[in-house]
Order: sequence, then structure tokens, then C-alpha cells
Amino acid sequence: MSKKILVLPGDGIGPEIVAEAVKVLELANSKYSLDFELSYDELGGAAVDKYGVPLADETLARAREADAILLGAVGGPKWDAIDPAIRPERGLLRIRSELGLFGNLRPALLYPQLADASSLKREIVAGLDILIVRELTGGIYFGKPRESKVLENGERMAYDTLPYSESEVRRIARVGFDMAMVRNKKLCSVDKANVLASSQLWRVVVEEVAKDYPEVELSHMYVDNAAMQLVRAPKQFDVIVTDNMFGDILSDEASMLTGSIGMLPSASLDADNKGMYEPCHGSAPDIAGKGIANPLATILSVSMMLRYSFAQAAAADAIEQAVSNVLDQGLRTGDIQSEGCRQVGTREMGDAVVEAL
Amino acid sequence: MSKKILVLPGDGIGPEIVAEAVKVLELANSKYSLDFELSYDELGGAAVDKYGVPLADETLARAREADAILLGAVGGPKWDAIDPAIRPERGLLRIRSELGLFGNLRPALLYPQLADASSLKREIVAGLDILIVRELTGGIYFGKPRESKVLENGERMAYDTLPYSESEVRRIARVGFDMAMVRNKKLCSVDKANVLASSQLWRVVVEEVAKDYPEVELSHMYVDNAAMQLVRAPKQFDVIVTDNMFGDILSDEASMLTGSIGMLPSASLDADNKGMYEPCHGSAPDIAGKGIANPLATILSVSMMLRYSFAQAAAADAIEQAVSNVLDQGLRTGDIQSEGCRQVGTREMGDAVVEAL
Ligand SMILES: CC(C)[C@H](C(=O)O)[C@@H](O)C(=O)O
Ligand SMILES: CC(C)[C@H](C(=O)O)[C@@H](O)C(=O)O
Repeated sequence: MSKKILVLPGDGIGPEIVAEAVKVLELANSKYSLDFELSYDELGGAAVDKYGVPLADETLARAREADAILLGAVGGPKWDAIDPAIRPERGLLRIRSELGLFGNLRPALLYPQLADASSLKREIVAGLDILIVRELTGGIYFGKPRESKVLENGERMAYDTLPYSESEVRRIARVGFDMAMVRNKKLCSVDKANVLASSQLWRVVVEEVAKDYPEVELSHMYVDNAAMQLVRAPKQFDVIVTDNMFGDILSDEASMLTGSIGMLPSASLDADNKGMYEPCHGSAPDIAGKGIANPLATILSVSMMLRYSFAQAAAADAIEQAVSNVLDQGLRTGDIQSEGCRQVGTREMGDAVVEAL
Repeated sequence: MSKKILVLPGDGIGPEIVAEAVKVLELANSKYSLDFELSYDELGGAAVDKYGVPLADETLARAREADAILLGAVGGPKWDAIDPAIRPERGLLRIRSELGLFGNLRPALLYPQLADASSLKREIVAGLDILIVRELTGGIYFGKPRESKVLENGERMAYDTLPYSESEVRRIARVGFDMAMVRNKKLCSVDKANVLASSQLWRVVVEEVAKDYPEVELSHMYVDNAAMQLVRAPKQFDVIVTDNMFGDILSDEASMLTGSIGMLPSASLDADNKGMYEPCHGSAPDIAGKGIANPLATILSVSMMLRYSFAQAAAADAIEQAVSNVLDQGLRTGDIQSEGCRQVGTREMGDAVVEAL
């Protein structure tokens, strides 16, 4: 039976980079006889333009039926002044939530070929390979109540709620430990347990889950210290597990350590490893349509898809190897350009990966 | 009339570094005829040991009467297993809140003498001088309700609330703009307005306050992007204003960019510039009692006290100059040690500053 993949190019550079990733996906499809069937729809601003909402119900239905989703990126100035309820980002948040994609994997990997692109000293980041596991469907992103109101004294006020239940913490902790088990068996759980009630529960539950993983060396760190340690000595980390908001902040910080955010993929998985795959970077409206965006993060997201949703490790490895080869050949998009390398556009980079594959 | 300064040495390395800062304060006192009267009390773990609570009511009363407070640092493993309601940190949070110290100034300044201590490349951080203005008495640190409970299905859950009112945002925004006016007239307000209701209000109010500061160039940035930009190109910032939680994370990240967190002071001010002054670093229990901690952040906190609470710019400048001089002399504590410099202990460093002053 064929596997369904829903492709959501999204906004900004989304369509350009997704087009290259689809070429790679199609090639892997035929080369490894994967029997994938692709269909397309819109998310974010493009969906607002087409359907009037950032995630249409029919798109959501299609996403539910799909075995995996490939996403470009969402958002852009065109929709900045829109009613907050239908901002492009709401579509992204809704699809994550509706599909139960609670397990967000964000690797921060330094490509040896790009070692000098980091703003950190070479010895601090050489060989960096950490994985941030971010809880993606709970916490302050979705907590109720949330409200904006006018007080009796005429003052405006607004509030959000940061809730976590035991089962939400337990399932994301398991993802963290499972990932640590197939990596270097070190897990650092990041919270703010010296201040937040939700973090105190988080820490207790992570400790409980730890009993099932005696081989994993577990540590706890406050989020402010983690933000510091990522700059000071990022290689002390293997896997980091943390909540939705802290994961948003720390994963962006960590990805920038590598100096190549245009290279970093991500996976958002549900309890059955059905997943949505997207680059870590955003929709980069400033360079949209110019054909210069780096498609490698999206291409590597295809590799993650093959690995996590379809258990096709060989095909996934081959794509990663192909990406490494084009870097070895000295091809670079503008964002990772360095002396002595050949600067190429989005399409040329995509074609080179297809060629290498 | 004499001015009252309450000294709270706190825990860990607190007493050692405060002792050196007090020497500097006493010298400034006599040299500039400041008529300061010092008294001492406990906060944090030391207060738990003495009074059974991390901030005793009598200490709070003394703090209210004081014109300024000098704090070392609080917390340590000794009190880790204690009832969360009387953790050392609760004392710190309570004194901030009770005294209305909403305006937290955290400079991240790279000392030219320590340029190589940063984990970032020299050209990325050389000349770095940014100021983070953190809201310190509102947001998720103090939001009610907050609770830990068992649901009907037997599951544990916990939640925190992140509230901001218009007046809370307005007064901290003013601090941000005022600081920008005496610096480089650039203010970046950091929020997560694409997700949080509280951030949406934050952004609206900051825009309103901006009308009173036409000379300041205001920008807005999402917190995840800010965490990234601080690593990528920190010198793009002049003043950053942000909420309590984001400020906690970003100020620690920013201070680490300088590679010399042992050098960074902070001020927490109320509406009348009454303030509490403390180093940005923590109580470092691992090196407590060894006489090797760096007292310079605390000494520079004294300088901030003279500048902000007592409008003694000349005395404040003189202390900063004295610190710069001892660095020029090549004296270094262990945390900022580098080749060719002379490693000294806490007391020797304090004495050198006194000497230079
Ligand atoms: C676009 C935004 C809502 C989103 C988030 O905060 O989760 C993005 O920053 C991300 O990290 O995927
Ligand atoms: C000790 C802790 C409660 C405190 C905070 O989070 O505010 C500290 O990290 C700080 O930044 O002063």
C-alpha cells in the first residue's frame, strides 16, 4: 500500500526550498521503491490567502490521513497586520496540536565543512552534535485560560497560562531518554524549578521516568544557566529535553552556535512516530523569490522523515551523505558562503544533491 | 543626614565577595564624604539558618528603611531539599517584590583586557556593550493563580500564570527608553507576541510609550530570534527591554558572551531609584570559602549603587577606573585567568582595587 506524504510549502522561501526537497524525495522514492504518493496543500499565510484561515479544515483532514508531512516555513510581513486569530503562525500551532505532534527533535550539528561559519571559537564548537527535544503541544503555547481584558480601573491587562500534566511530561521525557539511549546516554532536563510550579512537577516526573533508563546519565539545569552553558561550553550536552517555550528559545540559540541555521532540519512526532518535518529556520521573507535560499535544511528534513516515520535508515543515510558530498565539493549558498567556495542558488544546490544521490 | 545601606552577604561565595566590596564602599564613603551608615543582615539560605525563613520580616523592615541594599548571592545545595516555600530563592524573589524593585539593569560589557575570555570570536564581541533591562516584579515569577494539584483522573498537574498589566509594561518600557536615551538611542523590545497574549499587550504598550521618545529607534524581536541574534551578532544591540522570564534567560546568555560573568554587576531599582545591587553571577557553592572567587562584579555593583541610588557619578567612575587599572596591572582571579597574568585570590583582588582607588 502506498504511503501518503502531504507537502505544505508555506510562505516566503518555503515554496523554493520545498521544491528542491521534493526532487530529493522523489528520487529516493524511486531509487528505494518507497511507494510514496505526494499531495500538496497550503499552510500559514498562503492558506490565509487561499482559504481565509491559516489552516483550513480540509487541509487538516488531509494532514490526518497523511503518513508524514513536509513543511517549508510560515509567516511574513504581508500578514503582520492581520487579526491575531488568523495569523500564519496560528496555522502551524494548530496543526501541531491537532495532530498531537508533541515530540519536537531539533538537532544542532556542526558540519565540519562549515566549522568557520560559527561565531564561536573553533575549539568551542568543533564536533558539536547535540539534540534538543522540545515539548511541542503543551505548556504556555496552548494553556487555557488566556485572555486580554480591561480591568475595572480601566487598565488593560493580559495573561497566559503555563500548565503541564504528568502524562505530558512523561511522554516527552521518554522521547528524551529514548534519544539519549541511541546517542551518548546523557540527558539534561532544563526547567526553572526554583521559580515555577510547572517546572517543579516537570523535574519530579523526569526523575520518575529516569528509573526506566538506568543507563542514561540524567542531569537537571535551570533554563538561565542552560542559555549560558550553551554559549560557554556547548559540547557538554548530548540530549536536552525541555518544555515548549524554553525549547523554542534554546533550540534557536543552539542552532545558531553551528553558524549554519540554513542546514538544520527538525521533526515533530506524535506517539506513533507520524511526523511533520521542516527546516529549523523561518520563512525569510527578505530573500523570498530570489532563488538564493539554502534548501539543505529542508532536504535534511526529508532524511529525518525517512528515518523516523518510515524507518528507511539506508535512504536517510544516503541523503545525508549526498549533502555532505556537495559541501565537500565546495558548493555553498549565500548563508554559508566562505572563501574559496563556489556560491550557488537554491536550485543548483538542490540539483547537486540529486546528482550526488 | 546619613544614608543607610543594608548589606546582605547571603550564601556561598556571597560573604567573601561582599567583604571586598564593602572595603571599597567604606573607602569611597570617607574619600567622597558620602556619610553612609552600613548595617548587616541575612538573606537566602543564611536567613533560613538564622531565622527559619529566607527573608525575615525584620530584615524586610530594615530593607525598607535602607536607602540602598548590597547583596552577595543566595542559594546552595545545603538548602536544596528544603520545603519549596522557604527555598533561599524565595527570599530573593520576596525582597524584589516587596520593595517594588521592578527595574533590573544588567549590563553585558566586554572588558578589553579580557577580550579573549569569551567563547565567541574576538571580532564578534570586541567592544561589546549592551544593557538588558529586565522587568523584575511581574510576569510568570509572581503570577497568580499558581498551583500543583491532582486531577480527578488521579493525574498530577501544575500550572503558572503569566500576567502583565498596562502599567507594569509602561514603567519598565520607560526605564528601557530612558536608558537608551543616555546610551546609543536604540531600544529592542523582546517578546513572543506571535504566541502569547501577554506579549501582544507588551508590544502595544511599548509602542505607546515610544511616542514620548521620538529620538529612540525602537525595534521588536521575538525571544527565540533574540537568543539567536545574541550569539550571531550581539553588537547589533544597545538596550534590550524584556519581561521577567525572558530577561532571566537572555541576560545570562548575554553575560556569558563577555566571557567574564565574574565581572558583571546588576541593579534592581524601584520607582524612586532606591535599589538593590548584586553581582549577576550566583553563589557558586563549589568554590565557597576557598578565597578564590572574583569580587569585581560585587565591587562594580557598588559603583552602580553610587551612580543610580546616590547620583555620585564621580565616585562611581572612580571605582570603575580602579577596576580597569587592576586589570591593566595583570591581576586576575581564576575565572578570568589568562596567560601572562598573575592569578590572585578574592582578598588580594579587593585590596588591589582599594589601592588603585
Ligand atoms: C512561528 C512560531 C510560532 C514557532 C514557535 O514558537 O514554536 C517557531 O518559532 C518555531 O520554533 O517553530
Ligand atoms: C535565583 C533565581 C530565582 C533568579 C531569577 O531567576 O530571577 C536568578 O536566576 C536571577 O536571575 O537573579
